[in-house]
Parts: sequence; C-alpha cells; structure tokens
Amino acid sequence: MAELLETPTLLLDLERLDANILRMRNKLAPFNVVLRPHVKTNKSLEVTERLFAGGRGPITVSTLREADFFFAAGFVDILYGVGIAPNKFDHAARLIKQGLALKLVLDNLESARLLANFARSNEQVFEVLLEIDCDGHRSGIPAHSALLVEIAQLLRGSGVTVSGVMTHAGNAYDSRSIAEIEAYARQERAAVVDATRLLDEAGFELSIVSIGSTPTALFTQDLSGITEVRAGVFAFFDLVMAGLGVCQVQDIAVSVLTTVIGHQSEKGWTIVDAGWMALSRDRGTARQSVDQGYGIVCDLAGQPIGDLIVSAANQEHGIISSRSGNIGSAVELSVGTQLRILPNHACATSAQHAGYHVLAEGRRLGYWSRISGW
Amino acid sequence: MAELLETPTLLLDLERLDANILRMRNKLAPFNVVLRPHVKTNKSLEVTERLFAGGRGPITVSTLREADFFFAAGFVDILYGVGIAPNKFDHAARLIKQGLALKLVLDNLESARLLANFARSNEQVFEVLLEIDCDGHRSGIPAHSALLVEIAQLLRGSGVTVSGVMTHAGNAYDSRSIAEIEAYARQERAAVVDATRLLDEAGFELSIVSIGSTPTALFTQDLSGITEVRAGVFAFFDLVMAGLGVCQVQDIAVSVLTTVIGHQSEKGWTIVDAGWMALSRDRGTARQSVDQGYGIVCDLAGQPIGDLIVSAANQEHGIISSRSGNIGSAVELSVGTQLRILPNHACATSAQHAGYHVLAEGRRLGYWSRISGW
Repeated sequence: MAELLETPTLLLDLERLDANILRMRNKLAPFNVVLRPHVKTNKSLEVTERLFAGGRGPITVSTLREADFFFAAGFVDILYGVGIAPNKFDHAARLIKQGLALKLVLDNLESARLLANFARSNEQVFEVLLEIDCDGHRSGIPAHSALLVEIAQLLRGSGVTVSGVMTHAGNAYDSRSIAEIEAYARQERAAVVDATRLLDEAGFELSIVSIGSTPTALFTQDLSGITEVRAGVFAFFDLVMAGLGVCQVQDIAVSVLTTVIGHQSEKGWTIVDAGWMALSRDRGTARQSVDQGYGIVCDLAGQPIGDLIVSAANQEHGIISSRSGNIGSAVELSVGTQLRILPNHACATSAQHAGYHVLAEGRRLGYWSRISGW
Repeated sequence: MAELLETPTLLLDLERLDANILRMRNKLAPFNVVLRPHVKTNKSLEVTERLFAGGRGPITVSTLREADFFFAAGFVDILYGVGIAPNKFDHAARLIKQGLALKLVLDNLESARLLANFARSNEQVFEVLLEIDCDGHRSGIPAHSALLVEIAQLLRGSGVTVSGVMTHAGNAYDSRSIAEIEAYARQERAAVVDATRLLDEAGFELSIVSIGSTPTALFTQDLSGITEVRAGVFAFFDLVMAGLGVCQVQDIAVSVLTTVIGHQSEKGWTIVDAGWMALSRDRGTARQSVDQGYGIVCDLAGQPIGDLIVSAANQEHGIISSRSGNIGSAVELSVGTQLRILPNHACATSAQHAGYHVLAEGRRLGYWSRISGW
C-alpha cells in the first residue's frame, strides 16, 4: 500500500500507463510508421519494455548515458536526439563498435566537418540524421536550405552516412487549441518531407524520415512520407499536456506521494513534505490558461481534491492552497494525511526520483528504477 | 583538465569554496555561536568535511537520507530541519537507537501528539526543536503564541524533549537591499529569543536557540541569545545570492560545464548541450532586478563572456543569447567550445548531478560524489 511508504516518493499508475501507451499505438496503427519512443521521460527499463509489450524496438534517447543503459539491456537501434558535441565522439564510437545501430544528429557544417574528420582519423563509421527546423523552436536547418545538401556532400566518403532527417515541433507545446496542434503536425511533416525531396534530388537517398512530439503525434491526420514517429511524454502525460487538451487530468500516470506536516490555517495553507526537490522546479503550466502551481493535489486514490494545488515550494516543503483563494478548503487535511501531486511536467518531476513505486488496482506491485546523469 | 570531460557536468572551484567557507567562519567568529551548516546544498561528504576543516561538527539536513549518509560517515549531531511526518517516525527512531543525536522539528499540536504517542508506545526518546515563524514565509509558530507552551506541556513525560527553538528567515531571499537583509536578521534573532523567554517563563529551559539563512548569517550584527547559526548556500553561492548583493558573481563556486553544439545565427542563438536537466528549472533570478535566465555564461576560466546568458532551456538543449539582445555577440562561440554556466540556485543545480569535478588552480583534482533522494 502506498500509505506505508516514506514520503516524498514517486508513484506510477500502471493502468493509466498502459492505457496511454495503447492510445498512441492505436493512433499510429493506421499509418505506415514505426514508433521510436523517446525514453528521456521514463529512463526506466521496465517502462520502456512496456512501451513495446516486452520487445526491444527502436528508441530515442536524450543522453549517451541512456544509450549505454538501454543498449546493455538489449535495445540495438537508438537515436541520440541531441546534436552531437565533439567531446562525445569517442563515446558514440565505442557504442557503435560494440554493435549498437546508433544514429546521431547534425544540424550544421562545423559539427559535420568535425565528425567527418574524426571518422576519417579513426576509420570509424557513423550514421547521422540531419535535424530540420520546422518551427523556429530551437535547433535545426530550414527544410529548403542548401545547407542540407552541402552537409551531405561534405560527409560523402568520410565514413559518416546521412541516413535520414528528423524534426521536432517543440512549439506545439505552446498551442492554444487542437486546431493549432494539427497545424503544427502538418508543418512538422511538411518540413521533413520537403527536406527529403531536396536531398533526394541531390542524389542522397534517405531511409529515415522522423518526426515527433506527443501533441502532434496524437493529432496528426497525415503521415505520408514519414517513416517513424518519436514521442515520450504520452506514456505518462502531465498537467502541461492536460492544459493543451491532449489528455485528461485523470490520464496522468505519475504522481508524487507526499504527507501533510503542518498548517498555517489563517492563510489557508497546508504544508507538505514535497518541495521542489520532489516536484521539480518546472512551472510549465504558468504560461497556460490555468496555472497549476507546482501541481494538482489528489487523494490517495488519485482523485483531485477541490481546487487544491501546490502553490509554492521550497526545497523540501510544499505549500498547498486553494487555486480560487478559498481559505476554508485547505485546512481539512490533518497531519499525516498522504496526498498525490500530479506534475506539471512528467520528464522533470520523474527526474527528481531514483525510481517508481508501481501501483495497479490500488496495490503496490514493485519498484522500477530509473537512471540519471550523462 | 575540464576540457576533456564529457558534457554537461558539474564543476566545483575549490579556491572559491574555501574562500566562501572562510568568509562565513570569519563572520561568525566574534559571536559565541556554533555553525551548524545545512548540507542540503552540497550533499557531499568531501564538501561537508571541508566546512569543518576535516572535522565532524553539527549539521543540518533536509532529508533523513542525508541523516543516514552523514551519520554513517561519523557526523553524530544532526538536525533534520523539516517538520517530521508520521511515516518517518520509525526511520528517525532507528537512527537515534544507533546513537545519532538527531534533532527533529515540530510546529503544531497534531504532530506533537502523534510523536508523543509514538514515543510512549515504543518507549523511544526524541529530541525536538520547536519551529518559530519569524517572517510568514512558510512553517512555524509565532514567537508569542501560547501554542509553544501548550506543545511543550503536551510532550512532557512522553519521552519527547524540547531542547530548543529554531527559525529560518526565508523571506530574506527576497530582500531588495542589504538594509532589508539586516532587518530580517534582527527579526530572525528576536523571534527565537522571544520564544525562548516565553518557554523559559513556563519552566522549559532550552539549550538550543537556532537561526539561519545565508543572507542573514552574513549580515547579522547581533547574535546575543543565539546558540547556533544554520546556513547552506554560502559555501557555493549562486546568482540569486549575487543578485541580493550577498556575494559577487566571481564568488560562485559551482558551474555547469557545457559544449556548443550549434547556432541559429540570425537569431543570435548559440545552442549548448546543457538544458534544464543539467541546469535545473530554477529561475530564482526572474523576480530579481536582473533576470539571469538559466544562468550566466562564462569561459573555461570562469569569467563571464559579455552579457551572455542561457535564455531558454529544453531538457538537454540550452539556448545562449545576449541579455541586451545584441545578436552579434553570441555567434562567435564555435562548435565544440566549452563554457561554464553559473547557476541561479546552487542547491537546485547541484541536485541535478551525481557529483562534482573539483578544480583547483585550473587543474582537476578529483570527483566528489553527491547523494540524492529520500
């Protein structure tokens, strides 16, 4: 039982996890695409196995540490989704020599030149995807830029093969409507399809055309020309996704178990033992229409209690109050009461913990550990 | 050399650390007080030993996990500074049975009653400090509240001894001037001195009168009636402390080493491989007069570069740009360039890492590991 755990600690609701995974699988089933889930959200062998019903499909990672870990566990096709830094060439080469089909990401001439030089000097082959900028969010090359062909040409003969293109519609997280998400999905697809055509016309044949974000993957209507979809947070969901309308609050599979340790009754505050160390400092809902503070407060069964949120957080203290300022509602929670806090951002909150206490049908099934670091 | 490290990773500048520790020691030397440093900032045996010049003095912890770890390393006088939750009574009792002089914190009748019942049922002694609210920041009982005596009376004969009072001027972190910090320091001292008098008059003699926060400890002018000072972030400092005027930017001892992986030149963006996972989501300077984004960008020697800051962060990507909007200055940093990012909040940023690469006189001395979790 969750009641017996020392708090704060992280809970994972297995039924919600499975339902979320099924939803993504069902969404993508009609399309001719591979799901290459991003494991940066879960960083757990057991969760990632669950994504493949026990199998070992292709995955996306955010660190080479994740690549090390999942490769050691039998995952042999891994995309490292962050532009490769020169100080990681050795590490990547080591994984490839050991048999990992590792894909790296490049989005500029300088990086391409450095990787090509390394490949030549070390007689090391690499497989890369060129990153396309579909929304001005962060990294990547515009889909119509001559730079794409220039990079592919520079790499030719170096041992570095361009096997595909990839993009991520990061701005979809700031959408104000499902229609806007659908527009980002079209834009995401168009960017890599256009880039693929450009490279094809220059004589570079690509086998991977990769897109993905949880919002666009769940609302796309057209994946023609796409070979694979990446997404991570869909398995857990969070309040940012609920605020976008991508999921319901009751779909959120991770929560932080915490305990009431005191009150400031005249302020309507309940003090709990989950602060930002357990919840993370992520305030992703602050820019949405409903600001959820540091998270929605639920009872042990996972049902929200009134309009209570964690309105402020210190390192190991959280302050619970009513979102509407109703002072009466907060102070009914007596010392020792255990609560579950739904996170703004599943990736950030989960990263504050070493693992998940897994719950199913109200019982505790076990503990699934997470990795961290680089 | 730091250049050879895979990034992102956490660096600790030993000379700055030692100078910061010396400053606090020198500040407190004229007063008749014990320093009980808060180790929640460093969570490292080597750093904590450095705080005591190799000794094993009294410490403050934010989790019982820290108490386990530091007690196993020979620290025998530990204050757990967060109001105790009932699900931690067993854990605390175990540590006390093993010989730890563990001090717990209480600030309400409910918690006191639960602890007294546990103590009686288990014939277990506990030592507690009553938490005083000196600034309305979070937890604690007003210094003049009859509740203090009521709790002390309730505990009498239960096995739970009230050995002192403690407070933390958390609002000092929002000060706008040194004069304001000094006022918080007076308020912090007065609160516990008044509470001590109240309890003394009711027949409860206290041996510990404990205050502390880095800003108030460094600017206090009167510690009469105080027996000990707690502070944690002073050893590392950070941009929030620099923004308060408590330290200089060049005093900050921790930084995140990162590498340039690309650019969006027309936007003046340099992309690095330190995102919020490495920097934390802490945006503590956002409410100060100068918003430092996710941190100030320095060269490998630790000197700030122009007015560059990490202006945005995704999980493993950071976007560097000029605070003034000067697009030209950001793009001179070529791919592969390593940079050091000074953190907003040392506690939060350090917590994202498993340890510190320790630097002294530009050389790498070793790796000091950190603990995490609860």
